[in-house]
Amino acid sequence: MFKIAIMGCGVVGSGVADILIEKKEELSKRFNDTVELKKILDLRDFTGTPYESYATKDAEEIFSDPEIKLIVMTIGGLDFAFNLSKRALESGRHLVTSNKEVVAEYGKELTQLAFDNNVQFLYEASSGGGIPVIRPINICLSSNDIYEIQGILNGTTNYILTRMKDDGMSFEDALKLAQKNGYAEAEPSADVDGHDACRKIAILSTLAYDEYVDYKKVPCDGIRNISYEDLLMSEKLGYSIKLIGGSKKTDAGISCSVEPLLLPKTNMLSGVSSVFNSVMVKGTYVGDVMFYGRGAGKLPTASAVAGDIIAILCGAEEKVLPGFMSKEAELVPAGNTPARYYLRIKLGEAAKADFDSSAEALFGKEAKTTEQGEYAAVLTGYFTKEELNSRIAQLEQSIAVKCENIIKAED
Amino acid sequence: MFKIAIMGCGVVGSGVADILIEKKEELSKRFNDTVELKKILDLRDFTGTPYESYATKDAEEIFSDPEIKLIVMTIGGLDFAFNLSKRALESGRHLVTSNKEVVAEYGKELTQLAFDNNVQFLYEASSGGGIPVIRPINICLSSNDIYEIQGILNGTTNYILTRMKDDGMSFEDALKLAQKNGYAEAEPSADVDGHDACRKIAILSTLAYDEYVDYKKVPCDGIRNISYEDLLMSEKLGYSIKLIGGSKKTDAGISCSVEPLLLPKTNMLSGVSSVFNSVMVKGTYVGDVMFYGRGAGKLPTASAVAGDIIAILCGAEEKVLPGFMSKEAELVPAGNTPARYYLRIKLGEAAKADFDSSAEALFGKEAKTTEQGEYAAVLTGYFTKEELNSRIAQLEQSIAVKCENIIKAED
Repeated sequence: MFKIAIMGCGVVGSGVADILIEKKEELSKRFNDTVELKKILDLRDFTGTPYESYATKDAEEIFSDPEIKLIVMTIGGLDFAFNLSKRALESGRHLVTSNKEVVAEYGKELTQLAFDNNVQFLYEASSGGGIPVIRPINICLSSNDIYEIQGILNGTTNYILTRMKDDGMSFEDALKLAQKNGYAEAEPSADVDGHDACRKIAILSTLAYDEYVDYKKVPCDGIRNISYEDLLMSEKLGYSIKLIGGSKKTDAGISCSVEPLLLPKTNMLSGVSSVFNSVMVKGTYVGDVMFYGRGAGKLPTASAVAGDIIAILCGAEEKVLPGFMSKEAELVPAGNTPARYYLRIKLGEAAKADFDSSAEALFGKEAKTTEQGEYAAVLTGYFTKEELNSRIAQLEQSIAVKCENIIKAED
Repeated sequence: MFKIAIMGCGVVGSGVADILIEKKEELSKRFNDTVELKKILDLRDFTGTPYESYATKDAEEIFSDPEIKLIVMTIGGLDFAFNLSKRALESGRHLVTSNKEVVAEYGKELTQLAFDNNVQFLYEASSGGGIPVIRPINICLSSNDIYEIQGILNGTTNYILTRMKDDGMSFEDALKLAQKNGYAEAEPSADVDGHDACRKIAILSTLAYDEYVDYKKVPCDGIRNISYEDLLMSEKLGYSIKLIGGSKKTDAGISCSVEPLLLPKTNMLSGVSSVFNSVMVKGTYVGDVMFYGRGAGKLPTASAVAGDIIAILCGAEEKVLPGFMSKEAELVPAGNTPARYYLRIKLGEAAKADFDSSAEALFGKEAKTTEQGEYAAVLTGYFTKEELNSRIAQLEQSIAVKCENIIKAED
C-alpha cells in the first residue's frame, strides 16, 4: 500500500494528479503494490472534476492517514509550502516537490529533516522542469568532479529572446506576447530579472559541487536591457544571446551568476530556442554533457515529479542528496581573466566614418564590428573588465558615441 | 565491505580502474563502507603499472572471493564475455557492463539471471557511452509512454560525416583520418555500416517501449554511399545528414531502423558534430527531451560504468529493467506515409537546362533543387516510396540522368 497525497492542485499539481490517475494500474503492476493517489489538498471546489473524490481542504486529513506514504508539494510561494513540507517529513513521509523557492531557501533544513526521519526528499522538477538533470548529476555523473554548469533555466526569458529575434520585436512587445500566451506572469520580474534562473542554478550548483550555494548571494542580471538590435547584431557576429545561469568551480572557489551571454554557434546551448531549457554540465571524466527539454508547463513538470515518485518506489536511497547539508560555498567573483565582450554603441551619423578604425584601435585586431540602423556593435578582443571600461570611455570621448550595453561573449 | 572486480583492462576497463582507484576514499565516505577495486582480470602483464597489485589471469580468484560484490564486465566480443557475465550473476554478484554486443544479444538471459539471483544488471555505458540516457529513461521519464527515439549513436560515423562536410573530404579519406586518430577500427564495418548503432537503438527501444526489440531484425544502413556533394547540397537546402538510429511506437506497432537522414536545422540533433552522440526521446507527458555528450572514449564510458556502480551502492532496485524480459516486439515497417526525400542526381551538361523544370513537374511544387559541380539535388515534395521510385524512373528516362542516392528528409 503506497498512497500519495498532492498538496496544491494548480498547474503542476493537477498534472501530477492526472498522471497518477492515468497510470495507477501500470505503477501498481510495476511495483507489485497498490500505488495510487488518495488525497488532494486545495481550497478550491472540485465538484464535477476528476479530482472531486480526492479533494480535501483539511491538511489534517492527510497527516492523520497512515496509508499515505508520500506527499507531493506543488503549492507555490514560500512559508505556507515550507511549513507543510516540514510537517510531511516530520511525519515520516517522503516528500517530492516542484517548488524551487522552498528548495533554494530551505533545502538545508528539509534535507536534514529527511535524513533524521529516514525518508526521501526529492526535487527533480525544481530545476529544468521536465528535463532529467538532478538525478543524472546525483547518480550517473557523480563519480566526476563537476567543474562547470551552464544553463538556459528560464523558459519565459528564452521565449521572449526568441520572439524578439525571430519576429523583430522589442522586449516590451515580446513580454506582452509571452503574458498573452501564458508564458509570463502579470508581474514578470521573477523571470525577466533572472531571479527564477538564479534559484535553479543555485540548486544545481549545490548538488554538483557538494557545497551549499546560497542563491541570495548569486549576482543576478536579467534581459530587460537586451534590444532587438543586440540580437540581430550578435547574430551577424556569429553568436546568440541567451540568459545563462552559470557556475564554475576552480582552485579559487565557486563562482556563480545569472546574466545574458553571447554564445558562439558551436555551443549547443546557442541553438536552444523558445520555451525550451537546457543544461550543460562539464565533468572531469565525462567531458561535456547536455540535457534539453521543456523547462515548465503542466505535464512536463509533472513528469519530473512522477520520476521522483518512481525513484522512491524503486527504493533508491537518494535521500542524502549531498550538497545542502554540506558547508556553505564561499562564492568568489567570476575572476578577472580577459574575455571578449559585445558592445552596443549608439552611433550618430557623424561618428560612422570613424567608428571602425576607432574600434579596431581600441579593442584589438581581433575586434569585429557590425551595424544596424543607428547602432553599431563591437565584439572586442580579450580584455579584463577594468581595461574594457577604460577603453569604452576612450571610445565614447574620442568619437562622441554612447555605449548602451555590454555583454560578455563566451569562446 | 563492497569490493569490485573488473574483467578486461582495455580502454574502458582501465578507465573504470582509474576512477575506482582515484575515488576510493570519496566513495567509501559517501556510502559509509569500504568501496574499492580488488581485482582486475586480464591476460596482459601489468608489471610496473598502477594495475599491478590488482592483476590476475585467473577468473576463479574473483569468483571465489566473497568480498567481491560487483563485477564490471569490460571484455569485448560475445561468447567469452557472456559466459563470464553469466557466472557473475549466478554467483550472486551485481553485474555492470559496457559490452553492447552482449546486452543486445543476451539481455534477456542476463536480466532473468539477475532477477533469479536477486542482484542487479546495469548497462548505462552500452548506449550513448558517457551520456546518461538509460537511467533517465528507466526512472525519470518512466511515467511517460515513450513514442519515439532518434539518436546519433555512433561517434565514428558522426566524426566521418563532420570531417567530410567541414573539410571537403571523401568518405574514404575521412575514414582513413578517423582510423589514424583512433576513432575507427582497421575493419570499420561495425561502425560505418550501422551495426553498432543498430545494437544501441535496439537496447534503448527495448527499455523505452518495454518490449524486446531484437537488433538482428532491425533494418540497417550505413554511410558508405554519402558523398561530400550530398553533405554540401543538403546544407544548401537547409539540412544536415546524420546517421540516425530511430524507432517509433504507434498503434500499428514498433518500427526501428538505422539509416542516414536529412534533419532540418530546427532539429537539435542536426547540430551534433564530430565524435559527440545525442539521443532525442519523445514522451507523452514530457514532450521532447534530448541528451548529448561523448558516446565513446576511455573516461566518458568509464564515467557511465561508475554511475551504475553508484546506483547499485544507492540500493536502487532497478534490477528488473523492464524490456528484455518482456514479449518480443513484432517490428513493423516504418510505414508508407508520404515523406520528403533528398535525391542526388548525376547531371550531364545536356540535362542541366531541363533539370529544374523536370524536377518541379515530377516532384511537386514544394520541391527544391540545388547544384554542385556535376551533381544536382532535389528535395522532393511528399511522396510514398513507391510513387517516389516511379517518378525517379520517369526523371531518369525523360532527361537522361542517374539518381545515385536517396535519403529520407525529416520534417
